[in-house]
Amino acid sequence: MTEKTGSDGSRITIDYRDAMASAVGAEHGVSDAMLDEVAPVIAEQHQRLVAEHESGGQRWMDLPSDSVLAAELGAFADEARGRYSDFILIGIGGSSLGAIATIQALTHPFRNLLSPEQRGGPRFFVLDNPDPEKVAVTLETVDLSRTLVNVVTKSGQTAETMANFLVARQALEDVVGADKARRQIVATTDPSSGILRQLADQEGYRTFPVPPGVDGRMTVLSAVGLLPAALCGCDIDGMLAGARAMRARCASGDVRQNPAYLLAALCILADTRLGKSILVTMPYADALFGVTDWFRQLWAESLGKRLSVNGEEVFAGQTPIKALGAIDQHSQIQLYTEGPNDKLISLIAVERYRDRVTVDDVPAGIPDLDYLRGAELGQLLRHERHATAWALTEAGRPNFTLTIPEIDAAILGELFYLYEAQTVMGGALLNVDPFGQPGVEAGKNATYALMGREGYETLRNELTASGRGEEAYRLAPA
Amino acid sequence: MTEKTGSDGSRITIDYRDAMASAVGAEHGVSDAMLDEVAPVIAEQHQRLVAEHESGGQRWMDLPSDSVLAAELGAFADEARGRYSDFILIGIGGSSLGAIATIQALTHPFRNLLSPEQRGGPRFFVLDNPDPEKVAVTLETVDLSRTLVNVVTKSGQTAETMANFLVARQALEDVVGADKARRQIVATTDPSSGILRQLADQEGYRTFPVPPGVDGRMTVLSAVGLLPAALCGCDIDGMLAGARAMRARCASGDVRQNPAYLLAALCILADTRLGKSILVTMPYADALFGVTDWFRQLWAESLGKRLSVNGEEVFAGQTPIKALGAIDQHSQIQLYTEGPNDKLISLIAVERYRDRVTVDDVPAGIPDLDYLRGAELGQLLRHERHATAWALTEAGRPNFTLTIPEIDAAILGELFYLYEAQTVMGGALLNVDPFGQPGVEAGKNATYALMGREGYETLRNELTASGRGEEAYRLAPA
Repeated sequence: MTEKTGSDGSRITIDYRDAMASAVGAEHGVSDAMLDEVAPVIAEQHQRLVAEHESGGQRWMDLPSDSVLAAELGAFADEARGRYSDFILIGIGGSSLGAIATIQALTHPFRNLLSPEQRGGPRFFVLDNPDPEKVAVTLETVDLSRTLVNVVTKSGQTAETMANFLVARQALEDVVGADKARRQIVATTDPSSGILRQLADQEGYRTFPVPPGVDGRMTVLSAVGLLPAALCGCDIDGMLAGARAMRARCASGDVRQNPAYLLAALCILADTRLGKSILVTMPYADALFGVTDWFRQLWAESLGKRLSVNGEEVFAGQTPIKALGAIDQHSQIQLYTEGPNDKLISLIAVERYRDRVTVDDVPAGIPDLDYLRGAELGQLLRHERHATAWALTEAGRPNFTLTIPEIDAAILGELFYLYEAQTVMGGALLNVDPFGQPGVEAGKNATYALMGREGYETLRNELTASGRGEEAYRLAPA
Repeated sequence: MTEKTGSDGSRITIDYRDAMASAVGAEHGVSDAMLDEVAPVIAEQHQRLVAEHESGGQRWMDLPSDSVLAAELGAFADEARGRYSDFILIGIGGSSLGAIATIQALTHPFRNLLSPEQRGGPRFFVLDNPDPEKVAVTLETVDLSRTLVNVVTKSGQTAETMANFLVARQALEDVVGADKARRQIVATTDPSSGILRQLADQEGYRTFPVPPGVDGRMTVLSAVGLLPAALCGCDIDGMLAGARAMRARCASGDVRQNPAYLLAALCILADTRLGKSILVTMPYADALFGVTDWFRQLWAESLGKRLSVNGEEVFAGQTPIKALGAIDQHSQIQLYTEGPNDKLISLIAVERYRDRVTVDDVPAGIPDLDYLRGAELGQLLRHERHATAWALTEAGRPNFTLTIPEIDAAILGELFYLYEAQTVMGGALLNVDPFGQPGVEAGKNATYALMGREGYETLRNELTASGRGEEAYRLAPA
């Protein structure tokens, strides 16, 4: 395996001064003593992860190195970009959040409004929710004769995705016929088993693999995330190079040197020792909002776990919140500053935005506007971030800042890998298994039961017979 | 004042069985005894609110009755809809969240992709964040010669809004000249004072009022929210009628009859007595996601307040989270079910979606897909909601469901008024002033200081001199 990091190496800086006791007080801040205390645990868990990886586990770590897949995806995308006017990604949760985050970060904010030449690829639509209003208008809006559909589910058991896919498949067949429809469908699924694999083989769809041994929420750097990204013109090689750069930086087992472990320690210590049960992630860039939504799934589903400690049931996990600077200064900062001190706040600063916009003309006669003369909007946002961090710290609210030089493919790859490594170490510190999502089975089964799926009759009876009709706690219109 | 409710009256049902101790246990559920206990407090606070309203306070209650304003907005919008190809709303927080929520709920999800005829009005863009990447591409994307700009800020002190506005104004002037630019600008601001009022008078902008005596986050039913809505073709009369229907239903001081007070009691009791410090709002409809974002500001900024109780500092407020069903079943439900039991979860069910989409064709030979044959997507979403509520309840997680018959203008008006009344009563139960946002002043002043605004020199010195340069807690790339 040839290793190559991004030409610049990792470019992310973490400033965690304001998360420390020295800035916000011992009751709310992490101390050096706490970091010293978890340092050997982290070093030991790092060795465990390295060993597991060497014996074929922790396969998410390998994704940044799969240059064969990247080349194959690139070739497919190069050919498809010119052929299709529209592209529909059908997937939910880990099967769409990474692609959405990537395309939002790296492409034009109004990409679907651009001309095909400006856009350099098909328009991008997502069917994640089986919301009939969204599904109907999406299928009306695209040109079905020139639409590529990418259905993404590892098992094919996901009711929402398969329902949306069967509807889209039918719509394609109605317009172009069954044979051509098959060639407009590409399935990203398990290489060897599952319902969608079976269907893809039966129908002869082109397929790409959901990587075996990797949880859905860690597949952004596989075909799951990279195929949609490549189709929309994102630099997937750059993303992988960035992820490798971060992986190289994460080779250290030292909590103060490995950025992922440092973040894991700050977050988990804040949660378990300081009562910061909520983790807010607040980038100061519209383009990064999708990354916070992707991370929100990663952190919640990986760490929100029930476990048994000395025979007692413990409910672990820190609740992630997505926010956006400066917008949420006008929505949530009042609560974050004067409400319960139960949050750790992660700000993301951008040193250089991809555009420069200055306030050149300030009307005369209104002195109160003079401070805006010559202001550059990126500078304004950086000041807002600085001011907010300062105000939070003054109020004793712990916070830290990730600074990225600019938003590009490599930085995005770095962020994805950083957050994945942080999450895996977070699981180790909480003593939970960061993989799997046993807590959603009950709801999934209940949905199958209500849908009348065979084998779920007993549960169905329980769900429909029990007191949902009970009127005591129901307030209906007069 | 002529009172007219919507022809159907209120149409929202609240099922709160699963928030009660009888469903999720005494440790996590609200009890009838608790409701009995707050009932007289609520009745008394209701009387106070009625009295304050009668003496000219609580003016947010009056907004649904302002038919003169609605007619004026309607006339303006009717004329403007045909004239402009593009419309840019410039405002942040309470000055844009309500309009965004309304337009998302009531118009085509890909409205900006439609032809002018299908759309029936200008395309809709928002400049809320002063993100230079977003601002630059927005101004490049619109046809500035046919663009209407609506700048919304009560005081004109909001740095983000004024910076974005001055940039947009300059862009307009560059294309159409100063005289014509003035006629393409409409300002929604304080009727008599403030920087934007001064500028609007000086430049001769058409203006609409931000209603005096109403907090920004409660202005969605004024010109702030209704002008953008009307320009995008939303039925603002229907919205106001719905709000009046809910207001009529909220005339009761009985916690078990008044839906807003019932919700306030459930949320605040869950927060203060049962440790549910987080309130999740999770509609099962893409179109309602903006409403949860609007509510998130309302709940956070109104109730997240520092207060003094017997000389001790208390930090009040429940942290609101926006979620979306069924998407977040694949992102957050693992945490909500098996993580800390610190949440009250509000689901929103839709009885009839505006489209029907059925799975007509299920491929033969794959028995595991048969359960989807004939499935209707709206029914699938309703089953998902039902299954999720059941699974949460089984796990002892309190939740309740608001059911709306369908998404229309009147229901939206109902929801806005319902949540406002709930929030005001929530403030009363927490003993905090739900109006104002004193906690954001420090950050605002710090931004002014960093921007070099006159009068903030001392703070600027403090901000730039202090140890931001400290390197001890900084992890930079090698």
